[in-house]
Amino acid sequence: MNISTEDVKKLREATGAGMMDAKKALQESGSFEDAVSYLRKKGHASLAKKSDRVAKEGVVTSYIHAGGKIGVLLELNCETDFVARNEEFKELANSLSLHVAAAAPIYVSRDQVPEVAHENEKNIYREQIKDKPAAMQEQIITGKLEKYYEMVCLLDQPYVRDPDKKVKDLIAETVSKLGENIQVRRFTRFVLGAE
Amino acid sequence: MNISTEDVKKLREATGAGMMDAKKALQESGSFEDAVSYLRKKGHASLAKKSDRVAKEGVVTSYIHAGGKIGVLLELNCETDFVARNEEFKELANSLSLHVAAAAPIYVSRDQVPEVAHENEKNIYREQIKDKPAAMQEQIITGKLEKYYEMVCLLDQPYVRDPDKKVKDLIAETVSKLGENIQVRRFTRFVLGAE
Repeated sequence: MNISTEDVKKLREATGAGMMDAKKALQESGSFEDAVSYLRKKGHASLAKKSDRVAKEGVVTSYIHAGGKIGVLLELNCETDFVARNEEFKELANSLSLHVAAAAPIYVSRDQVPEVAHENEKNIYREQIKDKPAAMQEQIITGKLEKYYEMVCLLDQPYVRDPDKKVKDLIAETVSKLGENIQVRRFTRFVLGAE
Repeated sequence: MNISTEDVKKLREATGAGMMDAKKALQESGSFEDAVSYLRKKGHASLAKKSDRVAKEGVVTSYIHAGGKIGVLLELNCETDFVARNEEFKELANSLSLHVAAAAPIYVSRDQVPEVAHENEKNIYREQIKDKPAAMQEQIITGKLEKYYEMVCLLDQPYVRDPDKKVKDLIAETVSKLGENIQVRRFTRFVLGAE
């Protein structure tokens, strides 16, 4: 394993271990995960949550609908704390949470759709249109996939409060106003009693 | 595949398909999932979310900490809508959300700890105490596992507002007051910028 200063720093952040212990752990282990286990075995590491220490700006926001029947938790990222505290940024986060509660997307963006789901959709479409002329089939499938993305991907969904624009357009408006990259990092949606 | 009225009902709820279509789909398919695909291929099913229709009572609640740096979404279940609307029940849900924000559990209960995580912990402990007498080792490992559960399992954690009791004791108090089974179904915790 190649030991870089970056690796040592990362391991120290992840475990709270000292510099020399972290170096030794990396030298004697095959991977970052093994180095963490090594340090814990030696008693040099706590169950520290490295995830809590990665720095990024933005806001975590929530929206509870229908008196607690639906709940959404959403993280919206930006570049600076200055923008994170801006009212328009916070309002965008709230609007997105409300949208997720209403429109129930599954993914943030189309690149998050798993390959297997993607293939499954295509197979279903192929079966549905097998009687159409071959020359038309690819075009129809592309069109159906676009509809699928609009159904399951937050950024491609029509914005519930103004269906003429997509959610990504709504975000782009705030980006151009505030001049910072803004990204929906993740969201979770709970429906009471759902599986 | 054995076709029961229950299966047909479930498939109809999941897809919005008619009675005869659902029956036929089940007869011609090897599994419930295949029947859903079959119906979609035939155009008899939408991408309906069956999960939205399963009935259970309770509340989805959220807690946002530190001006949006940490967020929690939590589902607390009970048996009747009557209890779901009870103030003490709702207060319990809020207390649990706040607790999750502060104490960062990973699992609801110890039976949710994956076998591999469980084994990994035990291996680390074995290494840590390999110089102790063999007769003591099992006892020490059991003790360390208890500490681990108190660290990662919500129900086993000391309640942040009153560390003399565990979270499961807090829930048990409300159960005995309201006379219904109450269960934390699931929770999600986002830390801004965390992985």
